[in-house]
Amino acid sequence: MTEILNTSSRHFDAKFRETLRDLVLWRRDVRRFRRDPVEPCLIHSLIELASHAPSVGHCQPWRFVLVESAARRAAVRESFGRANAKAAESYGDQERERYIKLKLEGLEDAPVHLAVFADETTQAGNGLGRQTMPETLRYSVVAAVQTFWLAARAEGLGVGWISILEPKIVRQMLDVSEAWTLVAYLCVGRPAEEHLDPELERYGWQQRLDVERTIFKR
Amino acid sequence: MTEILNTSSRHFDAKFRETLRDLVLWRRDVRRFRRDPVEPCLIHSLIELASHAPSVGHCQPWRFVLVESAARRAAVRESFGRANAKAAESYGDQERERYIKLKLEGLEDAPVHLAVFADETTQAGNGLGRQTMPETLRYSVVAAVQTFWLAARAEGLGVGWISILEPKIVRQMLDVSEAWTLVAYLCVGRPAEEHLDPELERYGWQQRLDVERTIFKR
Repeated sequence: MTEILNTSSRHFDAKFRETLRDLVLWRRDVRRFRRDPVEPCLIHSLIELASHAPSVGHCQPWRFVLVESAARRAAVRESFGRANAKAAESYGDQERERYIKLKLEGLEDAPVHLAVFADETTQAGNGLGRQTMPETLRYSVVAAVQTFWLAARAEGLGVGWISILEPKIVRQMLDVSEAWTLVAYLCVGRPAEEHLDPELERYGWQQRLDVERTIFKR
Repeated sequence: MTEILNTSSRHFDAKFRETLRDLVLWRRDVRRFRRDPVEPCLIHSLIELASHAPSVGHCQPWRFVLVESAARRAAVRESFGRANAKAAESYGDQERERYIKLKLEGLEDAPVHLAVFADETTQAGNGLGRQTMPETLRYSVVAAVQTFWLAARAEGLGVGWISILEPKIVRQMLDVSEAWTLVAYLCVGRPAEEHLDPELERYGWQQRLDVERTIFKR
């Protein structure tokens, strides 16, 4: 088996690489969704693909929770409301005025809510690779989220990642193990608009940095 | 500008989606590299693309450090040696024997060493989105790493993520700001072998989990 795999390979051509670049550039954090449902088998296939993300020690710590209950979704929206009001208070008058005008989530309209957790107590991987950097367990889950995001965009779906939430309260509301850490709460659905530029650039909150200023040599 | 972008879009076809799936499946954590150099402009273009990953509040906290100094590379290998010896000690006899046979890094041969940090004190994004979940700053850097990894694989390059390191010591050895957190230390180069299955599966350390057991409904 190993021999066969050693001699096989997979080449990706220039056209694919160019389209992959477009995919990365056209991925957006979406906050405006159409309400039409998304086929469950499509979400399932995206989760299956995301499960091929790298994970420390191959521990595959991602746990995907499809939030379908209207009551639980309402509780998540309430958590956002509290966290967002508190965040708004933290800004000075001028900034607060700009902050509250931003649309930061699409929890009301998104047909799919997907909470993604890290199972901190998984035995898979037998601890390999995470003795000095245990945070790589949660980082593995982020790699799965970004893989899901890109693959979803290729299917014409938009994804929005809501971090303005109370993570422990959301975990309790979703009735999952205390050993699970909320990594990402995702809204998924067909976007109402498509943009090449991030919303926070379009509304003047934060511009793109010059990449040269983020590269260093040692 | 906004109007033009609102009406434009980007469609990805079935052939691209199929090849994207292959890309995700053929991405590997590579520990066996050929020593031929990689064109610096290729690495630069991959970093530029990775900078289009999502980031909380569009804060773009990633800082990429190309480690070129032989002395610094040697110091990183020494850090791996210490962390790996300590990790090996933590296992019982049988497991330790299996652990020490695994090849967990390609620090010696990889032509490119790329340390990726999160700038914890960046003013970009003005704190948006990270008051209740400040860890999303580091998560943004992971999204950039996974984007880099997939794009690198499409170029025929292999990437290996080393987490068996002493993160604070590596940060000091690379002489970067104390406000930067080491998120990932990457080896990059042309792989000596290509595989569809992860090394830790091939050597019997950890098998792939049944994805159905990672999906829940609430």
